[in-house]
Amino acid sequence: MRLTTDALTARVAGVLRAAGANDTMALSTARGLVLAEAQGLGSHGLSRVAQYATHLRNGRVVGSAQARVVRQRGGALVVDAQEGLAFPACDLAVAQAVGAAATNGVALAGVINSHHCGVVVDHLRAVADAGMVGLGFSNSPAAMPAAGGRHPIFGTNPIAAIFPRRPDANATPGARDALMVDLSLSEVARGKVMVAARDGKPIPAGWALDANGQPTTDAKAALAGSMLPLGAVSSTKGAMLALVVELLVSAVIGASFGFEASSFFVDEGNRPHLGQLFIVIDPGALAGTDSYLDRVEVLIDEMLRDDEVRLPGARREALRRTALSEGIDVPDALMAAWSTG
Amino acid sequence: MRLTTDALTARVAGVLRAAGANDTMALSTARGLVLAEAQGLGSHGLSRVAQYATHLRNGRVVGSAQARVVRQRGGALVVDAQEGLAFPACDLAVAQAVGAAATNGVALAGVINSHHCGVVVDHLRAVADAGMVGLGFSNSPAAMPAAGGRHPIFGTNPIAAIFPRRPDANATPGARDALMVDLSLSEVARGKVMVAARDGKPIPAGWALDANGQPTTDAKAALAGSMLPLGAVSSTKGAMLALVVELLVSAVIGASFGFEASSFFVDEGNRPHLGQLFIVIDPGALAGTDSYLDRVEVLIDEMLRDDEVRLPGARREALRRTALSEGIDVPDALMAAWSTG
Repeated sequence: MRLTTDALTARVAGVLRAAGANDTMALSTARGLVLAEAQGLGSHGLSRVAQYATHLRNGRVVGSAQARVVRQRGGALVVDAQEGLAFPACDLAVAQAVGAAATNGVALAGVINSHHCGVVVDHLRAVADAGMVGLGFSNSPAAMPAAGGRHPIFGTNPIAAIFPRRPDANATPGARDALMVDLSLSEVARGKVMVAARDGKPIPAGWALDANGQPTTDAKAALAGSMLPLGAVSSTKGAMLALVVELLVSAVIGASFGFEASSFFVDEGNRPHLGQLFIVIDPGALAGTDSYLDRVEVLIDEMLRDDEVRLPGARREALRRTALSEGIDVPDALMAAWSTG
Repeated sequence: MRLTTDALTARVAGVLRAAGANDTMALSTARGLVLAEAQGLGSHGLSRVAQYATHLRNGRVVGSAQARVVRQRGGALVVDAQEGLAFPACDLAVAQAVGAAATNGVALAGVINSHHCGVVVDHLRAVADAGMVGLGFSNSPAAMPAAGGRHPIFGTNPIAAIFPRRPDANATPGARDALMVDLSLSEVARGKVMVAARDGKPIPAGWALDANGQPTTDAKAALAGSMLPLGAVSSTKGAMLALVVELLVSAVIGASFGFEASSFFVDEGNRPHLGQLFIVIDPGALAGTDSYLDRVEVLIDEMLRDDEVRLPGARREALRRTALSEGIDVPDALMAAWSTG
């Protein structure tokens, strides 16, 4: 069944509300999941609706939670998600950080007692809309070992960034979209290992460890083990980046570590108390807004000298525009499951 | 000839002063280079003395430059290195950022009109000494292509981070060193390709491109081409991180792009006008200092459950301690070159 993004958002919000989410939480989360689906990011889109609803029903998420700022000094602040879904807390954190960066030039907002935040860079769209530069980080349940280690400790710990470009009324749609970077710190997504296991194919060295913490090229053994960090075949760099993200979004702001959180993919489990962190930078306080916008175009022109280069976020934005105008196809089985959920 | 680190610092400062550096620049730079050498990081240590001296003599670096704060709003500030060596400008930027973070909770200091900054994480030691968390970034002359691209645009664009630990007077030396992460965003250092070329051995796919921008496993062809970003065999993640660093340290603060700077390894060339960026975060404004320090130890304990895990920075710190007590061996040829330089 094809629905407009607005209609689909209302439908998803209804499912979350029926599972116990308050209006703010239901609507913010529905917007985030539909935005992900619209961009072709199904693993962070509609497939999460049932998971979040289950967590609301079994108490892993508190549906009545109201995110609030619990600590602030200058440009640094902490938002407590109060064990609710992450989306309204991230909305609040980013809005507060944008306001604080306007005064302080730079701001940092951490979110504690949080849950799965979906597509990290999507939380930064409000930053680019305000003409500012944003960085975003999150941890997630343990999936990767520390450098040299055998047992999973860190989540795949995404890093996101957004850089706005100069608006141009005469540009073709999409020509001046903000640059949007969004990547997890595993070498590859676990989905690639699942595909190889299904097809009975080996995986390259450097993708995963088996359940004993030994390197493996056996996809089935890898599924029982852990993913390896970015670049692990050559170095510990990816694992070091995962450590940096883990400490920033937990010890520094007061959230839990990934290894302390139960998987999102089990119905029963603890309240994950994970963390998100957003850094907002106003180029107007540094290079100056005009200089910043000019210089971004200089770098982009240099990148596009190679025909094969695609700007980060461009594909997602094109899909989002199509979904906005043409709607999103929702499998009937999914709609039926939501109706009976 | 073996010298104490203090004597060696004075000797290096003398060489830089003779080449035209003012006292502040000569001493700050000498301290940085000797600190790198003491940690076993020769490529950023004494081997740079002759290079910097040449740049001072031929005008690529202005020896009379005095770094100063040229812009500030709240926690965000810009230090102009005034085309001098990077070290005194980074000293000033970090000191200012630590002060600003004490007031604002978070601070960001950019350095513009700068040069090669050596070991990025070493600039963050003053952050950890103040009990704060630091992130550091720099660009460098173009060495890696954009995602999908063929010609070098980005530097190897290092990312560094420092996380202080709770001091413990009873701990063995080194047991409570700050965690220090410092990595460039190329898959491997160019030195590894040089070794393979010398030995007539192939290099793995994913390390480099040839001069035509094509993937190569021929080490000699790779030396004529460009390095590939971290994880390039599987994804564009490393290239995306390099883009993020490039924009942060240039467009956002007003420094030049890596592709606009001449190589450090040629005597003639432009004043590189490269950038550094430091972000300082006071956990006291967020999780609270005690909570932060407690939680870092929890994560470290979990990491050390695997015997093979070594904490980041530990090896460098052990070497530094040895150098402090036993001195550093300086090749006679190097000493002689400095005397006649």
